[in-house]
Amino acid sequence: MLIALDAMGGDHAPGPIVAGAVQAVAADPQLSVLLVGDQVRVEPLLAGVAHRERLPLFHCTQAVGMEESPVVALRKKPDNSISRCWQLLAQQKVEGIVSAGNTGAMVAGGLLLKRFLKNVRRPGIATVMPTLKGPCVLIDVGANVNPRPEHLFQYGVMGSIFARHILQRSQPTIGLMNVGSEEQKGHDLAKDTHALFNSSPLRNQFIGNVEGRDIHRGAADVVVCDGFVGNVILKTSEGVFEFTMKMVFQELLDALDGERDKAKQTLEGLIHRYDYSAFGGAPLLGIDGVCIICHGSSGDRAIKNALGVAANYARARLNELIVKELEASPITAAEE
Amino acid sequence: MLIALDAMGGDHAPGPIVAGAVQAVAADPQLSVLLVGDQVRVEPLLAGVAHRERLPLFHCTQAVGMEESPVVALRKKPDNSISRCWQLLAQQKVEGIVSAGNTGAMVAGGLLLKRFLKNVRRPGIATVMPTLKGPCVLIDVGANVNPRPEHLFQYGVMGSIFARHILQRSQPTIGLMNVGSEEQKGHDLAKDTHALFNSSPLRNQFIGNVEGRDIHRGAADVVVCDGFVGNVILKTSEGVFEFTMKMVFQELLDALDGERDKAKQTLEGLIHRYDYSAFGGAPLLGIDGVCIICHGSSGDRAIKNALGVAANYARARLNELIVKELEASPITAAEE
Repeated sequence: MLIALDAMGGDHAPGPIVAGAVQAVAADPQLSVLLVGDQVRVEPLLAGVAHRERLPLFHCTQAVGMEESPVVALRKKPDNSISRCWQLLAQQKVEGIVSAGNTGAMVAGGLLLKRFLKNVRRPGIATVMPTLKGPCVLIDVGANVNPRPEHLFQYGVMGSIFARHILQRSQPTIGLMNVGSEEQKGHDLAKDTHALFNSSPLRNQFIGNVEGRDIHRGAADVVVCDGFVGNVILKTSEGVFEFTMKMVFQELLDALDGERDKAKQTLEGLIHRYDYSAFGGAPLLGIDGVCIICHGSSGDRAIKNALGVAANYARARLNELIVKELEASPITAAEE
Repeated sequence: MLIALDAMGGDHAPGPIVAGAVQAVAADPQLSVLLVGDQVRVEPLLAGVAHRERLPLFHCTQAVGMEESPVVALRKKPDNSISRCWQLLAQQKVEGIVSAGNTGAMVAGGLLLKRFLKNVRRPGIATVMPTLKGPCVLIDVGANVNPRPEHLFQYGVMGSIFARHILQRSQPTIGLMNVGSEEQKGHDLAKDTHALFNSSPLRNQFIGNVEGRDIHRGAADVVVCDGFVGNVILKTSEGVFEFTMKMVFQELLDALDGERDKAKQTLEGLIHRYDYSAFGGAPLLGIDGVCIICHGSSGDRAIKNALGVAANYARARLNELIVKELEASPITAAEE
């Protein structure tokens, strides 16, 4: 199993990125990671590491900056590490790609190559969110900010397969993000998507509209939304968690006395466990191959997890299931 | 100062609604509250209360259910308490109206009467969010799920006046909710609104795009977004706060021993303080008069606060400032 890793992508690349690869190959004896990046910067980081034979290097001279315009960067920098990863995937030289670099450039790189799975209209980014009833899938969180109802419906199909095979939910429930629970709520996109689910083979899994507060209560195993809304949900959740924990820290450390250190340790453990960067990256579903997009601030642990997710995902052959399930959907067939 | 209160609106109406009115008139000797609702249910709640002379009753026979379709309910129930509140406002018999009832019906009631302030294209609901740097204004959180760029621009103008006069920010910063900080990010609505702010008299207050995680960090005094996204942000924030506090409670009460009760009290105090229902309701900005929309779960304290906000808002004469500032905006003038 060979996964390409964008060694130049991430706020602190290449240091923690390469460190994550070293940890990933140590944890999985079947895994090799192809480090895509500038040899001059990456090679020194590999001096003396274990399993060096499973950490090959693919040299390229350019990198897309975290704040660069994706489309402009991909055009002006043909030898950038993100485009090289996508090309390696398209040439089937690797089974998957992982990057903590510019998210827009990763998505644009995939869209430019147009290597979508059969019947897929538009790929979507799925992410795993913690809830009171265990993890749920939120899709799309930023690949597609102008979706049509058919796109959202397909996100439901793909998210459901992800929940079944990666999160082990036997019959995942699917909710549509909306501003109220009633069927007639929201804008046309929401109403049309609602109707599409209700007339599809997924209608038994579809629980209708869910609202913002329902996600973390665990109301649905899969929450479907457009990429603009999903991105806002993801980042707002991060912000509120951070805000709440800062408040709790401040108030509790002021109030407690003898057990202050014990409280501090407990809270730090909680932050560590619920730290979004630990969740191992978000798969771009619907492309031919495996693509995992990580948070820009990813450290070695997050990269190691993301490489593990990429390998599991390839092994589970989720893409074959996606193709099969979309083929069985009369809505897609009727509109081909 | 006479404010009309929808006595029939709210998950537990009329009990806590009327109790909130009783508290509000006790706290503000200049305030009278006109209770709009079913005399048979409201009158018994007023037996023996103080300041009964400042708690008049406006009898009506119908109420809109919390889950009813707003447009259908308003049409089929002409004597409902929400429509009666709006009519009292339109006839200038009251200076403001407050309801914890069906939000969609409250907004639809206002839109049907079309009593917008001069130059206002569409009203928007503003809400106050807690941040690490004090409260900020989020607008719109649900009045307008299909806005045009001019609507969002006007929300910036109105939100800024609210932040200046109610939150006491001398020169409020305005951020546009988007999926990334770069100017070219997001859908057309976001890009066009970005351009509109940058070519307006508000350009010195406009700090560009903000992301979900920036809100609770206090990156902007006013955050502008469409009503769909704003509603999702508001409810997701509620859900994440609830989720995080449950986790903290569970972990800390397990870990602590002698200071467990002290920790419990501190956490309960925090929840009480940051409880969204305590924030006193959200004003529907842009209508001629004062309209405060409260959370359906509002208890007496939230209703009391909302009545206080309505009175302050009327006294501050914010509507005159909104009209003046929108008149000074060449963008609005050019498009009339």
